[in-house]
Amino acid sequence: MRQFNFCSGPAALPQSVLLQAQQQLLDWQGRGCSVMEISHRSPEFIAVAEQAEQDLRDLLSIPRHYKVLFLSGGATAQFSAVPWNLFGGDSFRRADYLQTGHWSNKAIAEARRYGEVNVVATSAEQNFNYVPEAASWQASEGAAYLHYTSNETIHGVEFPYVPEVSCPLIADMSSNILSQPLAVEKFGVIYAGAQKNIGPSGISVVIVRDDLLDRAVAEIPRSLSWKVAADAGSMDNTPATFAWYLSGLVFKWLKAEGGVTAMAALNQRKSSLLYDFIDHSNFYHNSVALSSRSRMNVPFTLADNKLDALFVNEATEAGLLNLKGHRSVGGMRASLYNAVSLQAVQALVAFMGDFEQRNG
Amino acid sequence: MRQFNFCSGPAALPQSVLLQAQQQLLDWQGRGCSVMEISHRSPEFIAVAEQAEQDLRDLLSIPRHYKVLFLSGGATAQFSAVPWNLFGGDSFRRADYLQTGHWSNKAIAEARRYGEVNVVATSAEQNFNYVPEAASWQASEGAAYLHYTSNETIHGVEFPYVPEVSCPLIADMSSNILSQPLAVEKFGVIYAGAQKNIGPSGISVVIVRDDLLDRAVAEIPRSLSWKVAADAGSMDNTPATFAWYLSGLVFKWLKAEGGVTAMAALNQRKSSLLYDFIDHSNFYHNSVALSSRSRMNVPFTLADNKLDALFVNEATEAGLLNLKGHRSVGGMRASLYNAVSLQAVQALVAFMGDFEQRNG
Repeated sequence: MRQFNFCSGPAALPQSVLLQAQQQLLDWQGRGCSVMEISHRSPEFIAVAEQAEQDLRDLLSIPRHYKVLFLSGGATAQFSAVPWNLFGGDSFRRADYLQTGHWSNKAIAEARRYGEVNVVATSAEQNFNYVPEAASWQASEGAAYLHYTSNETIHGVEFPYVPEVSCPLIADMSSNILSQPLAVEKFGVIYAGAQKNIGPSGISVVIVRDDLLDRAVAEIPRSLSWKVAADAGSMDNTPATFAWYLSGLVFKWLKAEGGVTAMAALNQRKSSLLYDFIDHSNFYHNSVALSSRSRMNVPFTLADNKLDALFVNEATEAGLLNLKGHRSVGGMRASLYNAVSLQAVQALVAFMGDFEQRNG
Repeated sequence: MRQFNFCSGPAALPQSVLLQAQQQLLDWQGRGCSVMEISHRSPEFIAVAEQAEQDLRDLLSIPRHYKVLFLSGGATAQFSAVPWNLFGGDSFRRADYLQTGHWSNKAIAEARRYGEVNVVATSAEQNFNYVPEAASWQASEGAAYLHYTSNETIHGVEFPYVPEVSCPLIADMSSNILSQPLAVEKFGVIYAGAQKNIGPSGISVVIVRDDLLDRAVAEIPRSLSWKVAADAGSMDNTPATFAWYLSGLVFKWLKAEGGVTAMAALNQRKSSLLYDFIDHSNFYHNSVALSSRSRMNVPFTLADNKLDALFVNEATEAGLLNLKGHRSVGGMRASLYNAVSLQAVQALVAFMGDFEQRNG
């Protein structure tokens, strides 16, 4: 029986998507084989790929002067791809990065290997529990781009706005893409590993403005090049076809559910329910600044961390899966991606209330 | 209903593997979620990953001084990874490559961007229809490695032996790994995209000798580094968990079927059946030198190429899928990977005989 799954990623997928994939797994469209057993260059798979792209374009209103790529690997590969694709040509090998947690740290470390990284602002001194005010940012002259992580999965910190900058804006949106409407035209590049709001792990979506496709460092490895991928319809190499197909099913599901506007309302409701409960409790605590709280990942601690293991075990028995926090910050974490229902959060809050009563 | 599928890749998977995946797709091990909806760092998934590695080690008798990596992407990513991982340190930026078809060409083109490539031997002058005699090879002094493609999927050419060289031997085995026993200790590195004999596309296996992990070029992108992957158990980034899990199911299936020794016998029988039929026909033709014929991919032409479309259509109607040849060489191609049964090849030969009678 399906349980409520709060995994931070690879995360819960919509049940109807999994059901569809299950029904078609051995015999897709009555063709006598699985969608994962056909050539990526067959007309049948090309149709899957193009439909997925079109649905994603529809969902996020992606303008025509942006390419949409489906690439192997996740955000980590893009941490390398960003400087390799943007540090060439006439641009300076210098970029601005916002440092707001674990994932932006990783992106910074990789970019530093290829050029000068200017940390525009950091929240490190407060354990990454807020988004630094834009007024405090120290942008550099002639940066090739500014990079930020729109949602820090581990620290539970989310940008409540899109940064306004004069250079191309690059965003790692792995953990909050498709959770709300998005002004794509404000960005140079948006990338996201699939395993939170898109599909299974092993594939990522990269949305890149056409004029940024010619800035690659000459020696860029072929598999990291957005230009090569764009010219080949993301099929310069054999793509992760089953992951692409599943992502397409998720996009269809999102459209049927009312798209990102409906998701935004639902995500607001889900996260508010949990934050309100935590804030009205003396037993649970979330330390993120109110204005920077993530709608996707809600880390919280118990009044007594000796109860952590008991909480996780009892939650699992109650059908509430994968609530253990990341090893680097401890405590608990509930991830509330699109595929996590309101009922799941209601059940979680009910369990938390009960647990507090018995152990508080 | 399942049909006989001769796709060159992404290729047919064993039906029992797909059935198992189907049964578990929404509720894996009774845990209330899919295997693709849990953290790669969870004990449950670590167990999947470790079992898959162990089964692969058992199947190929991989010595302990080799690491086994499961990486995002396929062989194309490894075309970059090979020079980046082996052109650093004290080694010359020079490598020997055997040029035997489409895929070795791709590997050569990518390596040339990072160092000197010496083409040891080529069969280009005969449209890549044979493996050049080892006696003719022109090895270079001080090459960092020698690279070859053990099976050329498009041209249907397979090395009938393992090259003997004095530098580390690197093999792209994407399309014939696990098809027969293998002396892994003769190799420095073996790599293979999964989508032929291992699992779905989007993941690759890299088997690398420990002493070759310290030869990377300093600027190697993190996602291409075998050392980084080896140190992190292939989890420096979120791996393609579902593809890894499916690969593990294929390894279990292979073991149950008798391992690579049984596969070698079966593959020999399947390919001999088809080649014998072609050779005894005046209607069908395969132009590959006898000693270099691939047991995995059998390209063939019809006496009149105006009949190609009819052949493909009638074959499809007869339940024989994906026989159209690669666009670069035309004609037909039957791929006979491990998961393609003897019955499938018998049905193909019967159809071919019938088609010849009606159209020959």
